[in-house]
Amino acid sequence: MSHAFFDRHQELLNQAVAAIATRGYWSPYAEMPSPRVYGETANNDGKAAFDARLNKPFALNQAGTIGQAGKEVSPYGFDLGITYPKPDLDQLFGAIQNASTGWRKAGPEAWVGVSLEILDRLNKRSFEIAYSVMHTTGQAFMMAFQAGGPHAQDRALEAVAYAWAEMRRIPKTALWEKPQGKNEPLRMEKHYTVVPRGVGLVIGCCTFPTWNGYPGLFASLATGNAVVVKPHPGAILPLAITVEIAREVLTEAGFDPNVVTLVANDPSERMASTLALRPEVRLIDFTGSSSNGTWLERNAHQAIVFTEKAGVNQIIVDSTDDFKGMVRNIAFSLTLYSGQMCTAPQNIYIPKDGIDTPDGHLSFDQVASAIGDSIAKLTSDPAKAVEVLGAIQNTGVLDRIDAARAIGEVVQDSQTLVHPQFPQARIRTPLLLKVGSVDEEKIMQEFFGPISFAIATDSTAHSIALAQKGATEHGALTLSVYSNKPAVLDQVADASEQAGVALSINLTGGVFVNQSAAFSDFHATGANPAANASLSDSAFVANRFRVVQRRAHV
Amino acid sequence: MSHAFFDRHQELLNQAVAAIATRGYWSPYAEMPSPRVYGETANNDGKAAFDARLNKPFALNQAGTIGQAGKEVSPYGFDLGITYPKPDLDQLFGAIQNASTGWRKAGPEAWVGVSLEILDRLNKRSFEIAYSVMHTTGQAFMMAFQAGGPHAQDRALEAVAYAWAEMRRIPKTALWEKPQGKNEPLRMEKHYTVVPRGVGLVIGCCTFPTWNGYPGLFASLATGNAVVVKPHPGAILPLAITVEIAREVLTEAGFDPNVVTLVANDPSERMASTLALRPEVRLIDFTGSSSNGTWLERNAHQAIVFTEKAGVNQIIVDSTDDFKGMVRNIAFSLTLYSGQMCTAPQNIYIPKDGIDTPDGHLSFDQVASAIGDSIAKLTSDPAKAVEVLGAIQNTGVLDRIDAARAIGEVVQDSQTLVHPQFPQARIRTPLLLKVGSVDEEKIMQEFFGPISFAIATDSTAHSIALAQKGATEHGALTLSVYSNKPAVLDQVADASEQAGVALSINLTGGVFVNQSAAFSDFHATGANPAANASLSDSAFVANRFRVVQRRAHV
Repeated sequence: MSHAFFDRHQELLNQAVAAIATRGYWSPYAEMPSPRVYGETANNDGKAAFDARLNKPFALNQAGTIGQAGKEVSPYGFDLGITYPKPDLDQLFGAIQNASTGWRKAGPEAWVGVSLEILDRLNKRSFEIAYSVMHTTGQAFMMAFQAGGPHAQDRALEAVAYAWAEMRRIPKTALWEKPQGKNEPLRMEKHYTVVPRGVGLVIGCCTFPTWNGYPGLFASLATGNAVVVKPHPGAILPLAITVEIAREVLTEAGFDPNVVTLVANDPSERMASTLALRPEVRLIDFTGSSSNGTWLERNAHQAIVFTEKAGVNQIIVDSTDDFKGMVRNIAFSLTLYSGQMCTAPQNIYIPKDGIDTPDGHLSFDQVASAIGDSIAKLTSDPAKAVEVLGAIQNTGVLDRIDAARAIGEVVQDSQTLVHPQFPQARIRTPLLLKVGSVDEEKIMQEFFGPISFAIATDSTAHSIALAQKGATEHGALTLSVYSNKPAVLDQVADASEQAGVALSINLTGGVFVNQSAAFSDFHATGANPAANASLSDSAFVANRFRVVQRRAHV
Repeated sequence: MSHAFFDRHQELLNQAVAAIATRGYWSPYAEMPSPRVYGETANNDGKAAFDARLNKPFALNQAGTIGQAGKEVSPYGFDLGITYPKPDLDQLFGAIQNASTGWRKAGPEAWVGVSLEILDRLNKRSFEIAYSVMHTTGQAFMMAFQAGGPHAQDRALEAVAYAWAEMRRIPKTALWEKPQGKNEPLRMEKHYTVVPRGVGLVIGCCTFPTWNGYPGLFASLATGNAVVVKPHPGAILPLAITVEIAREVLTEAGFDPNVVTLVANDPSERMASTLALRPEVRLIDFTGSSSNGTWLERNAHQAIVFTEKAGVNQIIVDSTDDFKGMVRNIAFSLTLYSGQMCTAPQNIYIPKDGIDTPDGHLSFDQVASAIGDSIAKLTSDPAKAVEVLGAIQNTGVLDRIDAARAIGEVVQDSQTLVHPQFPQARIRTPLLLKVGSVDEEKIMQEFFGPISFAIATDSTAHSIALAQKGATEHGALTLSVYSNKPAVLDQVADASEQAGVALSINLTGGVFVNQSAAFSDFHATGANPAANASLSDSAFVANRFRVVQRRAHV
C-alpha cells in the first residue's frame, strides 16, 4: 500500500525534484480558491467542516490520552471551544517507539509515498484548513487559504523532494572489488540502509502554523522518523487536522498511526521544553522567539535543532525610477497581515538628505510621508482593508504598537478598524514612525507586528553598513533595496552576501519582499541569527537520516 | 589560475562524484609505495625531506607569528626537535579575515580547483608525509604511507566530491515566471550565490592526523571557508606539511595564503578550546576523546561541530565455517597498529557454552585461546611484528594496558618487543583478557590501544543484545559478526541498524574490520555516541556553505 502511494505520486515527485534544481516557478497546488479546481461546494464544505469542529473535543484516537487541552480564541473575536487529547508523555512515547519499528523498516519509498499521499489529501482539504488558519492566526481568508493551504503544501513537497533527492543518492547495494595484482581481487558486497534518527519534534508558531510547520514535519517524516507535532497553544487546529489526515493515511498504508502524533497544550502550560529534552527526540523544528529558539539550540543536545527566530528586516532606499511603485510596494508589504510575517520589513533606511526620483529630488520627510499616505490609502476602506490586514493574532502585538511609539515621531498612526463581519475582531492598521538619527539600541530589535521605522541615515553607504550590521548581529530574513545605481546595487549585493540575507531589488510591482515562493526562493539562509536553517535545502534534510552499512565477502 | 586548477582536475572530480554514487572500489591515489608510481627516488627523497625538517624551526610564513611551539617526540624514540610558528590569535584571525574576502568571492570552481591541486601535490609528497606520520603517530611505515598518504587523500577527495555534488545543485540563476491568468506573467531573475560559513577549525588527533584531519579540512576549504588547522601537539608535522602545501597552492592561484593557517601548541598549553570559542570559527571538525568532543558540542554554540569520539567496538562470535580464518582475521585486527585505531575491536562476545565450527564444537576457552595463540604467532618474530604493530603513540596507552589487567584473566599477555632499527621504540603486543561473566560497567568503556576482552555471554542472543546496547549507549564505529546462521545474521543486521553502527560479516580473508575504504565505506554513521557525523556524506558538507539569493524583476 505504501509503495502504491509512491507509485501514485512518483510523477509529481519527479517534477518536484526537477523544480528544486532549476528553481523557476513551479507549484502543483492551485493557489486560487477556485471552485473549478477545488470543486463547486469546496468552500461551503470546508466552512461547514470547520464549523463542525467548534465547541467540542477534537477526536484523535491517539495513544496515552489522559485528558483534554486547548483554549484557542479566534482573533476575529470568539472562542473556538475545541479541546484536544492531552497525553501522558511516557505512554505516548512508548506507543511512538512501538510504531517506529515498522516505519523504520519500510524504507524511503514508503516514507515518501505516505508523505505525498498526506499532502494530496491536505490539498483537498485546503478550505477547511484555510478557515482553521484564519481563525487561529488572524489572517484574512485569502492569505489563510494560500499561505496556510497550497503554499504550505508547496513547502512541504519541497522538503520531501529534497529528502528524496538525498536518500536516492545512497545506493541500496554495491559490489566492491579491489584489485590484488596477480591474485584474485578482494570482493565484497555492501548493503546501505537508510535509517531515521529517531523522533522529530515540530514546535509550531501562532502566525503560520502550517507554512512554517510543514517543512520540518515532512522532512522528518519522509526520512523515516516518527513526528510529534506540538502546535502553539494559540494555533492548534490547523496542525491537529494535519495530524488527523497523516494518521488516516498511515493507517491505510498499514502502519501504526502513532508515527505521527499531536501534543496540544493550554497557554498556561509549558510543554515545548519538556518535549524538547526527551531522549527519544532527535530532531527539533522550531519557529518562534529568539529566546526560545536559542534555548533549544543550547540545551536540546540530544537533538539536531532547526530554528527560525526573530530578526530585523530592512529596506535600503537610495533612489528609484518608479517612486509611486516603490511607495505602494513598501506600503503593501507593511500592511499585509498587519506586518505579522517573519519576512515583513521593519527598518526603512532613507538618506537624511533625501533621494533622487523621476519626480525630482525628494526629502527624507517627503519619502516617509509618501509611504504613510500610501498605507492610509490602502486601509481607508475598512471592508477592503481587513482583507489585507487580517486581525492581530494576540494582545502582545497591541502592546508592542504602544511601546514602539516611544522610538520616533508618528508619520502614520495605527488605527483601529471595525471588521464588517466580525465586530469583535482585533484590526489595526500599520504604525509608521520617523526616526531622525540612528540609535542602534532602539531600532535593532524586532517589533513583530504592524510597526515600522523610517530612519534618516547619513548616506546610502551608511544605510548599507547599518543593514549589513543589523542582519549580521540581529538576524534578518529579508533585505530590500531601491536604487537605480549599479554600483549601489553591487555594494548591497555584497553586503547581503556577507550578512547572509536574501535580497530583493527594486520591487515596484506585484511581488512583495514578504513573499517567498517554494521551489525558487530559499526562505532564510541559515547564515545569520534569524534562522539556523533554510527552507529548504540539502542541509535541511541530509542529517535527518543516517546510513548503516553491512558488508560481507561475496 | 584557480579555474585552471579546476579544469586540470575536472575529470578526476567527475570520477570521484561518480564513485560516491556507486560506492564500488575506486581510488585515484596508488596505495603501494611503488617506485614505478611515485618515482625511483621517491622514497629516498621523502626520507631526506623528512630528515631535513628535524631539529629546526618549520618555516611557514604566516601572519601574526610571535614565537615558536612544538615538542614532538617520535614513538620510535627520539625528539623531532621541530618548532612551529606560534601566532598571536587576534593578529592571525585579522589576517584570516582579510584573506577570506577574496576567497569567498572566488566561488565554488575556484575552491574546488585549489583543493584538488593541493591534493595532487600532497599525493606527490606521500613519502615525506609517510615518514612524518610514522614518527609522530608510531605507525609502521607501510601503514603510515597508506593511511597517512593515499588513503587520507582519498578521504579528502571524497569530501571535495560531496561538497561539489551539493554546490553544483544550486543553479547560478533562475528565471521565475508566474502566470497571472490573462495578464502578463510576473517575471523575476534570481541569482543564487554560494557563500562560506566563516572559518573552519580542524582539531587533529595524534594517531591519524591526516586521515582524520583531511575530510574536515577539505570539506570546509572546498566550500569557501578559511581553515585553521590545530594539530594534536603530538602529531603536528604531517599537518604542518599539509598547510605548507595548501598555502603554496593558494599563493600560486592568486589568493592570500592565510586562507589556510596552522596553530601549533606545546602539550602543556590549552589551545583547542580557546580556538573553538572564537566568534570567527563557524565550523569545527574534531577527532579525539569523548570528553573533549562533548565539550565542543555543548559549548561552541557559534559553530557547527563535527566530532569523532571514543567508542566500544565489538565482535559477536556465534559460529563459523572457517574457524582458522576467523581467528587469524580477529588476531590481525587486534594487532594492527597495536589496536590504536578508532575502528579496532575491543569486546569479543562468545557464548559461554562455546560455538559450532567445522572442527566441531569448541568451548569458550578454546575460542579465546585460539585468538591468543594467533596473536602470539603473528608477533613471534620482532622484525616482522613491528611492521604490523608499529609503536605505541604515547605512555597513556601503556598505562591503560596495565589498568586493563584488573578486568579479567590473561589469555595472551602484552609483550615488550625490541625494534631492530629503533631500540628505543615503545613496542607492545596485544593484551587479550578473558572475562567470565558480563559486568557492563567494566567492559563498556573504551580501552584505546592493544587491549581486548573475550567475554563469555549467556548466548548469541545475549551477545547481540549487549552489542546493540553497547553501541547505542557508549558508541561504536565498527561491529563484526561471525555466524553461519541466516537468522542470526538478520538479527545482528537489525541490531546494527537500531544502534547505528556499520556491520562487517564473516571477515576471514584479506579485509579487516578496522579498514574503512573511502568512496565505499561510510566511516562512522553519526547515529551513535562515537561520532555525530559520517565520513563522508551529504550531511558532512551541505551545511558548510549557505546560499544567498537576490531577485529583481526582469
